[in-house]
Amino acid sequence: MSDTLSIAIAGLGTVGTGTLQLLDRQARWLTERAGPALRVVAVADLDTGRDRGVNMDGIACYDDALKMVAETDADVVVELIGGSEGIARKVCETTIARGRHVVTANKALLAHHGMELAGTAEKVGVVLAYEAAVAGGIPIIKALREGLVGNRIVRITGILNGTCNYILSAMRETGKEFDEVLAEAQALGYAEADPSFDVDGVDAAHKLALLAAVAYGCAVNFDGIHIEGIRHITSRDITCAEELGYRIKLLGITRRVDNDSNGGVEQRVHPCLIPTGTPLAHVEDVLNAVAVEGDFVGPTMFEGAGAGAFPTASAVIADIVDIARGLRIFTFGRPVAELEKVPSLPMENHFSAYYIRLSVADKPGVIADISAILRDGDISMETMLQHGHAKTSSGAVTVVITTHEMREATMTNALAKIATLDAVEEPPCMIRMEAV
Amino acid sequence: MSDTLSIAIAGLGTVGTGTLQLLDRQARWLTERAGPALRVVAVADLDTGRDRGVNMDGIACYDDALKMVAETDADVVVELIGGSEGIARKVCETTIARGRHVVTANKALLAHHGMELAGTAEKVGVVLAYEAAVAGGIPIIKALREGLVGNRIVRITGILNGTCNYILSAMRETGKEFDEVLAEAQALGYAEADPSFDVDGVDAAHKLALLAAVAYGCAVNFDGIHIEGIRHITSRDITCAEELGYRIKLLGITRRVDNDSNGGVEQRVHPCLIPTGTPLAHVEDVLNAVAVEGDFVGPTMFEGAGAGAFPTASAVIADIVDIARGLRIFTFGRPVAELEKVPSLPMENHFSAYYIRLSVADKPGVIADISAILRDGDISMETMLQHGHAKTSSGAVTVVITTHEMREATMTNALAKIATLDAVEEPPCMIRMEAV
Repeated sequence: MSDTLSIAIAGLGTVGTGTLQLLDRQARWLTERAGPALRVVAVADLDTGRDRGVNMDGIACYDDALKMVAETDADVVVELIGGSEGIARKVCETTIARGRHVVTANKALLAHHGMELAGTAEKVGVVLAYEAAVAGGIPIIKALREGLVGNRIVRITGILNGTCNYILSAMRETGKEFDEVLAEAQALGYAEADPSFDVDGVDAAHKLALLAAVAYGCAVNFDGIHIEGIRHITSRDITCAEELGYRIKLLGITRRVDNDSNGGVEQRVHPCLIPTGTPLAHVEDVLNAVAVEGDFVGPTMFEGAGAGAFPTASAVIADIVDIARGLRIFTFGRPVAELEKVPSLPMENHFSAYYIRLSVADKPGVIADISAILRDGDISMETMLQHGHAKTSSGAVTVVITTHEMREATMTNALAKIATLDAVEEPPCMIRMEAV
Repeated sequence: MSDTLSIAIAGLGTVGTGTLQLLDRQARWLTERAGPALRVVAVADLDTGRDRGVNMDGIACYDDALKMVAETDADVVVELIGGSEGIARKVCETTIARGRHVVTANKALLAHHGMELAGTAEKVGVVLAYEAAVAGGIPIIKALREGLVGNRIVRITGILNGTCNYILSAMRETGKEFDEVLAEAQALGYAEADPSFDVDGVDAAHKLALLAAVAYGCAVNFDGIHIEGIRHITSRDITCAEELGYRIKLLGITRRVDNDSNGGVEQRVHPCLIPTGTPLAHVEDVLNAVAVEGDFVGPTMFEGAGAGAFPTASAVIADIVDIARGLRIFTFGRPVAELEKVPSLPMENHFSAYYIRLSVADKPGVIADISAILRDGDISMETMLQHGHAKTSSGAVTVVITTHEMREATMTNALAKIATLDAVEEPPCMIRMEAV
């Protein structure tokens, strides 16, 4: 084993700078543990001149990441540029082709091209590591591929997007609506200028796709994920949920079903009502949490910072030290050729209880009409809340219904009928209730 | 790399049988991930005849673990006999001396002889792995040595003993006293016939000693741990704590202090009052949880089953697969010679708020006397509860006081004086209040 592991960092944004600082500050500590000294030999960023709080002597600075990758002799390239295409993808492809290890925090890239990249890395015999891509500083990829390797994973339920969790927590604490809280989150740096990847559930889905692949040893299947975001959640939903004993969270959920004729993998990202007393309900603000259920270990939970310069850098470093220690594990736990192509379970067969919010005209007979549709659909109500005093600006009344469990198609069919009633003023809002 | 990793298991009790079953049921799954096939070649137990639910064909059965170890060619010996001395110790020593890897769940052995065993293993070039020794199925050793390796660990706070956590949960839920709940726990198999290792905090301390060594890269120092158990906790304490907004948990806490002249490592196991709203307060029954704070990652938490055949087997298998994959990490994260000998911080300098329960005669002037002692000690009270209706059998009244923070010596001095008052009928009960 060589006495130095050389590192090139592509992208000196928040995480890249954090990684550079961590390597600088913990240099001795890391060398004692990793074996070889970890030495940054090159960095690339459009702006390499800015002070990163680290002595850059002896580090080659590039403004072109591809040029750096083409020229560098570094053992490991850390890709922290982001995005599923373009430069980030080329940096990873080129690095692997040149026989160097890749460490990346890029979930979008891996969710879309992870199979291909992992296949090449396997052929070339290099590592493609991505602990930082999922749940920030929480070592969840390591837990799944190594710590819980003795288990067939039954289910994973995660709060995987800190921005959404922050927004939902803040809406609950302040009573403000989504738009206002989003604007505040943007001002605080908790949400991007273009927040759609976060608030529409795409980022959480990228992460879920990777978790599912590692957990089950199946092919990454981002397209098989049912994705809903949190834009339609109102402060009314949050207070009604509280009144009913629930909290609203954006969850990524994946479950393997292989004991009946409809075997497959369930993968879904959407807001959920979860009981207030459950551990995930208490994960607030920008924290992430991943609950993993294995057939031998039973339920486990991993919690921590899901984003931020230093927590993400902590995960990047873990991957680098693994490489330094000589750890070589298949990207998704087993050889790419053996990753099973498992069908996604369709949402219409999903079985759940539902929370329904309707905005209805305040006139006689409306509830009777709605109840009749539910009865005809064989849907049994659990609770109904109607707060007469809480009218919308148009004078409509909000009616909230929770149901017993049923097939999702049953619910969506009934909602389609309810939506056609004259007295129903907005498209119904449906949120799944999840026993976590 | 060989295409088979052969395994000998010493001790077929609960965990040994669970390990045997896991290896049997997940054989294909594990081989795909580990590389080599994992094959049990020998087992040792006083009773090898009993049906373990596994086909034992081709497995050599010994009733003498030392004989097995002396004769076996297995690559790995899994030590699941337990105990810090005697056969378990000899099995590990002999295995290492013969150049084979050891996987063990034996926290007592490692807390007392871990440095010595790790030193020999290092010299011989074999692995001494013990994920199963701490917090059962939770991969916390892996998290500290690998997943969070980029961090200087600041503090660890753990619910490390499922028996104590079960007893305290059950006392809270049922209102029963310690002795009664302990008897029930013994009947359920959650507590041993001789429960002292668990309820007196020794088992949690064994685990804490290992966590501290790995976290800080310091020598295992079991003797430096301040240990108190839960025998003195009454159902009155639990209801008073609830009334004040706290829950009582047996915690193992270690903190590294290295930024002042009194640097060292704090290691303590004792019951604590923790605020009801905190995540650790919600870890109930036999679950374990470990909160780890790193300088880069910030606060993280790991939760899961702390004991039981299958969860512990899950951790044993993780160690075996690591060995199969060629992972070689120093037992305590860095070479034994470099593990620092760090002084333990003495409890008299500990800084905390305190919960005090006194049993006092129901007569005038008692509270005045107690208050005067506290005043003279410069101790400021936060709350005082006196339930006149709740008298003990002797007619005494229970008085509960919580204080602001102070040096522990200040509190214990005042309590020593209070204990001498004629009206104080039992030794005062002091429980530390912990901001977790």
